[in-house]
Parts: sequence; C-alpha cells; structure tokens
Amino acid sequence: MSKSIFYHAGCSVCVSAEQEIVNLIGIENVEIIHIGENKSKILEAEEAGVKSVPALVTPTNNVLHINFGASIEDLKS
Amino acid sequence: MSKSIFYHAGCSVCVSAEQEIVNLIGIENVEIIHIGENKSKILEAEEAGVKSVPALVTPTNNVLHINFGASIEDLKS
Repeated sequence: MSKSIFYHAGCSVCVSAEQEIVNLIGIENVEIIHIGENKSKILEAEEAGVKSVPALVTPTNNVLHINFGASIEDLKS
Repeated sequence: MSKSIFYHAGCSVCVSAEQEIVNLIGIENVEIIHIGENKSKILEAEEAGVKSVPALVTPTNNVLHINFGASIEDLKS
C-alpha cells in the first residue's frame, strides 16, 4: 500500500488527530507534513484538495478532513 | 487493539469516507453503525462526542469528524 499523507499545522487539534491516525494506520503508512513550518507544501496540499488541516490524503487521493484546526487560506498569511 | 466505531448516515460523503477508513485501518478493526437506520444509536454517538457524521470514534475514545455529511441534530428529525 502506498502511503497516506497527513497535513497539519501544529495546532492542538492537529496534534491530537495525528496521534490517532498514527495509532490507527501505523506510522509506517503515513507521511506527516507540517505545512505551517513548510509553506512550500501549502500549494501541494491545495492541489490534493486539502481545504483545512488536519487532513489525510489517502493512497487513492481522497481527502479526509479530520475535525478542524485551521483553513489553508489562513495558513497562507 | 479494540475496535473503532464508524458512525454514518448513508450519505454519499459517509459512504466515501467509510470506504477510505475501511481501506486504511481494515474492516476487522472497525464497527460500522448506520445511525440513519438505527436511531437508537444516535444517543450513543452523541455521548461519545459525535456532532456530525461521518465520524470515527477511536479505541481511545477520541472522535474524528471526517469531512461533513450531516449533523447529529438533523438526524434526529
């Protein structure tokens, strides 16, 4: 199985969701990207369909927005 | 690992999320409950902290609201 990608921005909602996702699917199955610290990844996330973080992009390229931490728009500023 | 519980209401957003979750964590690790068809489960979901469906309640009792299909309130009517 190819990896899922978990995009987050370091918020408490993000950290909590990250722990749950890692527990559920295994750290070896998910790449974790902090788009607050790595702004160049914002465009990549947007192109994948991510509208808010935390979000998980699955190996089938579906986006699961998990709870709500921050919108992508807010992270650009 | 104890099972997660996936609550949904049969909406297209729910069905899509269900497929992704089952693919990611394995059908053997998740109990799927359709609270549109089983209204007695609405209270159980609410008590677990579910505010909208689809949602996944993890073995550690955290609620991951995944995308947005319908609010619990709307399902009561």
